[in-house]
Amino acid sequence: MNIEKDEIFRAHKGGKIRTQTTVELETVEDLSIAYTPGVAQVSEAIAQDEKLADTYTWRSNTVAVVTDGTAVLGLGDIGPAASLPVMEGKSGLFRKFADVDSIPICLGTKDVDEIVAAVKAIAPSFGGINLEDIAAPRCFEIERRLDAEVDIPVFHDDQHGTAIVVLAALRNALKLQGRELGDVRAAVVGAGAAGTAITKILLAAGIGDVAVLDSRGILGLDREGLKGMKAELAEESNKAGLTGGIDEALDGADLLVGVSGGSIPEEAVARMADGAIVFALANPTPEVEPDVAHRHAAIVATGRSDYPNQINNVLAFPGLFRGALDAGATTFTDEMKLAASQAIADVVGDDLAEGKIVPSPLDPRVAPNVAAAVRQAAQT
Amino acid sequence: MNIEKDEIFRAHKGGKIRTQTTVELETVEDLSIAYTPGVAQVSEAIAQDEKLADTYTWRSNTVAVVTDGTAVLGLGDIGPAASLPVMEGKSGLFRKFADVDSIPICLGTKDVDEIVAAVKAIAPSFGGINLEDIAAPRCFEIERRLDAEVDIPVFHDDQHGTAIVVLAALRNALKLQGRELGDVRAAVVGAGAAGTAITKILLAAGIGDVAVLDSRGILGLDREGLKGMKAELAEESNKAGLTGGIDEALDGADLLVGVSGGSIPEEAVARMADGAIVFALANPTPEVEPDVAHRHAAIVATGRSDYPNQINNVLAFPGLFRGALDAGATTFTDEMKLAASQAIADVVGDDLAEGKIVPSPLDPRVAPNVAAAVRQAAQT
Repeated sequence: MNIEKDEIFRAHKGGKIRTQTTVELETVEDLSIAYTPGVAQVSEAIAQDEKLADTYTWRSNTVAVVTDGTAVLGLGDIGPAASLPVMEGKSGLFRKFADVDSIPICLGTKDVDEIVAAVKAIAPSFGGINLEDIAAPRCFEIERRLDAEVDIPVFHDDQHGTAIVVLAALRNALKLQGRELGDVRAAVVGAGAAGTAITKILLAAGIGDVAVLDSRGILGLDREGLKGMKAELAEESNKAGLTGGIDEALDGADLLVGVSGGSIPEEAVARMADGAIVFALANPTPEVEPDVAHRHAAIVATGRSDYPNQINNVLAFPGLFRGALDAGATTFTDEMKLAASQAIADVVGDDLAEGKIVPSPLDPRVAPNVAAAVRQAAQT
Repeated sequence: MNIEKDEIFRAHKGGKIRTQTTVELETVEDLSIAYTPGVAQVSEAIAQDEKLADTYTWRSNTVAVVTDGTAVLGLGDIGPAASLPVMEGKSGLFRKFADVDSIPICLGTKDVDEIVAAVKAIAPSFGGINLEDIAAPRCFEIERRLDAEVDIPVFHDDQHGTAIVVLAALRNALKLQGRELGDVRAAVVGAGAAGTAITKILLAAGIGDVAVLDSRGILGLDREGLKGMKAELAEESNKAGLTGGIDEALDGADLLVGVSGGSIPEEAVARMADGAIVFALANPTPEVEPDVAHRHAAIVATGRSDYPNQINNVLAFPGLFRGALDAGATTFTDEMKLAASQAIADVVGDDLAEGKIVPSPLDPRVAPNVAAAVRQAAQT
């Protein structure tokens, strides 16, 4: 797809979101209901019973899309102002796919303590926090601290949104092949936000084994000096105790997930087992070009809309927040994430094929089904 | 006006504002324009030249309505959740009267440093900051520090919005009476946010003299132990060197502005000069009941919609921010505030009468006229 630059900039003129008011403001009586003195009755009622804010304000339907602008798309650390069009787009998708009100909040600080303090401070205005495009490794600490310290659900989409859709795609790929997740050995190339969350959800879902690679090779107990999340991954993954690099990781592997933005040599992909599955998710340039991957793999997915099997976070986050908001959830549990993943996979139904392991991002059934599954998982 | 409680709560169900998206999100091409990969071109352009964010995001049309919930209407410190309906109402008024996008941000902290840090952190997402219902005296420090530290205009409406409308009403009252502001001696009862800003704008506009009263009496150089803004007011006001209380302040005074929420005895009001002007602005109970005030005053205004001459901030803030945003202003200068005030007064035009010294809050001419005057003042 080749879209003219002019058309893109024209669509962005004045921004992509707007606020509107749901009340009439035409008469003095209207003003007296929506503003003073009438509004005081509502404020007093909420002051007596804070739960009423969920009914009489927009809070319980509103998600802040929060970024520090440090890991925006493939562009890296471009700052808060330049990240705003991406966050506005996200807010638009929340509206379109899940009827969620959503506000972009682009922070003018990269300091973890300041980010956590700012988001905690604004949290009373919102029903959920979608963290977005915050660089690893501080995204892990920010999410962990906020999840512990605010009483609304917090979700770093670059981690868990991607992980949920990857697992959905994998479930359908294996269903097509008649294989079980417990028999699969995977290599995740990239130990940033997405790679970490993908590894964790694969483990939570019961994958046979998974080796994670950073720029220096396979993470494992032999690797010295690992800290934070990488040390955690080294503990939890790679049961086989693999050492080395991409060749060793892919030798006989059933699944490759590329989330590194780098390039993976064809020779390494050629080492994979029969019926291999390759998810090369870097945008705009996949780690392995799909036609190259297809020489050695049975099923291929990318992050791009112009190839089959697009791993697109929009399949997850709208329905996920819709379900969490509807359930009044205070956090996103593993159960909610796994339920979302299964719901995405299930939508494909009888259309399942090697070129159709995930639904279209525009499929209107996805968000409601994900929302229902997440709501149920939150309430049990 | 007697509005049923049910009607008020019904109007608030689900909150009073919504977000919407201005772009189509129906096709894969739509997604590729509004979100990845197309949006990356816009983000890259802004990363190269941040000013482009004013054209290609909603930022330059968007105001955050920020509160800590400590001085909400007459209800006091009711907390962030209970303040949200008021802030949503304000956001609705911004939309209705000035086509400004506006978001309520209710902060879960009362600490000055934390409030300043949080607002600074979120400022890159917005074109202006409307501080609202933050208790004195910390509202002064918060506004001063934010005004110095962020590059978008910051405005505490409870101070300056009220002051601007009071000055507009006073100008028209004096015009009716054929008097000059320089000949007026005023008493401002209440030295909180509104009283302080009213005093400052009256001085900036060239009033003859003004005495300010707090709960202990007239502020002046004789008063020991005054700190912060009150010490500043004692320096700048009360040229006559009055001492004492309400009786001494009103003795021969031309103007009474009540912003204390307390009650002012009729005997004190009776001491005012011929042709006295009384603005008793407490809501819902004016410091002097209008019928009592009228026994001693020629012109009376209140904060209520069910009496003539309602001093309503909605006459000021929508047009004021519209003008500042349109001008790309980085602060609100005295000139901009005075221009807004004059524009409000001018709208009354030939309708000027003792019961019509300010326009109706619903008068559609007000916001555009204020915006034009403020824009011009900002650009000169």
